[in-house]
Amino acid sequence: MKPSRYEEAGVSIDAQDQAIEQIRGHVGATNTPRVLSDLGSFGGLFDIRFPEMDQPVMVASADGVGTKLKIAFDAEVHDTVGQCLVNHCIDDILVQGARPLFFMDYVATGKLKPHVVADVVKGMSIACKASDCAILGGEMAEMPGFYKAGEYDVAGFIVGVVDRKKLLGEDRVRAGQKLIGLAATGLHTNGYSLARKIIFEEQGLKLADELPGTGRSVQDNLLAIHRSYYKPLADLLDKDHIQAMAHITGGGFLDNVPRILPKDLSAHIAVDSYSVPPLFQYLVDKGGVDRDEAYRVFNMGIGMILVVEAERAASVTEHCAAQNLDPVALGEIKAGDGTVVLT
Amino acid sequence: MKPSRYEEAGVSIDAQDQAIEQIRGHVGATNTPRVLSDLGSFGGLFDIRFPEMDQPVMVASADGVGTKLKIAFDAEVHDTVGQCLVNHCIDDILVQGARPLFFMDYVATGKLKPHVVADVVKGMSIACKASDCAILGGEMAEMPGFYKAGEYDVAGFIVGVVDRKKLLGEDRVRAGQKLIGLAATGLHTNGYSLARKIIFEEQGLKLADELPGTGRSVQDNLLAIHRSYYKPLADLLDKDHIQAMAHITGGGFLDNVPRILPKDLSAHIAVDSYSVPPLFQYLVDKGGVDRDEAYRVFNMGIGMILVVEAERAASVTEHCAAQNLDPVALGEIKAGDGTVVLT
Repeated sequence: MKPSRYEEAGVSIDAQDQAIEQIRGHVGATNTPRVLSDLGSFGGLFDIRFPEMDQPVMVASADGVGTKLKIAFDAEVHDTVGQCLVNHCIDDILVQGARPLFFMDYVATGKLKPHVVADVVKGMSIACKASDCAILGGEMAEMPGFYKAGEYDVAGFIVGVVDRKKLLGEDRVRAGQKLIGLAATGLHTNGYSLARKIIFEEQGLKLADELPGTGRSVQDNLLAIHRSYYKPLADLLDKDHIQAMAHITGGGFLDNVPRILPKDLSAHIAVDSYSVPPLFQYLVDKGGVDRDEAYRVFNMGIGMILVVEAERAASVTEHCAAQNLDPVALGEIKAGDGTVVLT
Repeated sequence: MKPSRYEEAGVSIDAQDQAIEQIRGHVGATNTPRVLSDLGSFGGLFDIRFPEMDQPVMVASADGVGTKLKIAFDAEVHDTVGQCLVNHCIDDILVQGARPLFFMDYVATGKLKPHVVADVVKGMSIACKASDCAILGGEMAEMPGFYKAGEYDVAGFIVGVVDRKKLLGEDRVRAGQKLIGLAATGLHTNGYSLARKIIFEEQGLKLADELPGTGRSVQDNLLAIHRSYYKPLADLLDKDHIQAMAHITGGGFLDNVPRILPKDLSAHIAVDSYSVPPLFQYLVDKGGVDRDEAYRVFNMGIGMILVVEAERAASVTEHCAAQNLDPVALGEIKAGDGTVVLT
């Protein structure tokens, strides 16, 4: 039997059906009572009644994983980047006090490999389940000529909810409040283009090599899963014990912290208030990255920064320590000009 | 002054700042009263109070534009695909009776060209404004080595709302109801890999050539903007005069219509009930695409199919004609097995 013209054009309906079959279970595993999937077979349906809130506000964000994907391609490990994508999205709305409700994904490839896409979605499923977030839908695109063999791109979209009176951010930041840094698991999803250049091109390391000083392989360091801070911080958010949070992603301390600073205040951060993890020390030393650039391109070991009232600093730190977030006292909010002052 | 290590790694913060500057106006132009952007500078905030509804249900969908992007690259026209993406998303949730609330985008490039990304987002803005849909946020990723020079990929995520009692779909489909087809503007966003193979590779046409029989250039035919059916059908949805709708995207009549059919009913469609537009006739003839495949890969000129009560067929058809949707009586729902029967 002659192949269909569509298959000849590089689009495999069989591969798509296989992928959908493999993905179905992963997606279904994330269902929550709010998913009204029984009501329709097209888009995802979601119940948005929140009688327990005075004024529910939706918080939405879109994100990608960036060139961390190249590590996944080379290592042929695809579930971790799926988790990174979801957790990155969760942390992006968490900084406004929102808890995740549902997630949707976009996965694009040049030549669809069902098991690869299934692994990516499996990772999304693991991360979504861990945060009570439903995968409400997604798009899987096979685009001949767009991506190199074995490569793909992924994008994630998340929607969460927060009661308006519990919104976090700039409006609640005052002089004298303390900055608490929470440990990152690694690069999270930022600075990979530079990290890959330094580690692979300039230092010539391979995935299986130990990354000097870390006691772990390059692969384990670079595929470390972007941490979700939602569950560990949920109690603090319920009690409204956090004033503002900055997710340290692209732009590092220097570009992300100012997003929660009023024009007349600055964040004074003592860079020696914690020991920079070996991975980052290696990148800075071997890469000859100057201090300001390092704190703009990398998270330097701190994935999230909390702003809390001085009198709550101790209890919040205690809570975070109990949640294994390795909290550090980074500094405090002082009169200033809306910038970060590294001391 | 020596360039930053980050710039050396292929990521231009300047280009990102320029793009953001150019995009800001396009995004801001789509704001609606429900966007609470004044409340925070991170994720988009959206008011989800719908006192006029008994039970508001969110409907969400994710989508891409597929290889239609290749036409945009070759023609160096980038705003139309932005419009296609938004309208595709809108039509995907419209079939459940939902009206759009907000949209988010993901645009990824290998080397960021601010004016190109700005044009794509400008297109999204035009389409969102036309449908009272806010662009609540988005992600712009520069990923060295991921995309060819001048190429990019885009993904869109949309969230809409419908009152549960007005949900459309399978549950409301009965034998005897009529099928009304609404005209597509062209291929919309499906079948481009095959269409490009036939038109460019096999027939050797160029973008500026006339596509035989259409009286328009290949470029105008292939970049025709995916139509949004939301505004033209809004009144019918408010009056609850539609039982179900099928958005004819990938899978064509044969895979999309069954999604709104109960197991014991079939959709009988007379393919000669309308004249297939010259563009599709050309693709079928020159490409040697057999009938079933044609109705699976292409929309064949029908972008949306409505299922309405027989007694409403005349008034709905009249309304759609007045909205320039060129409605055609495609057939009706009969006892069957959940499939489409082409007659």
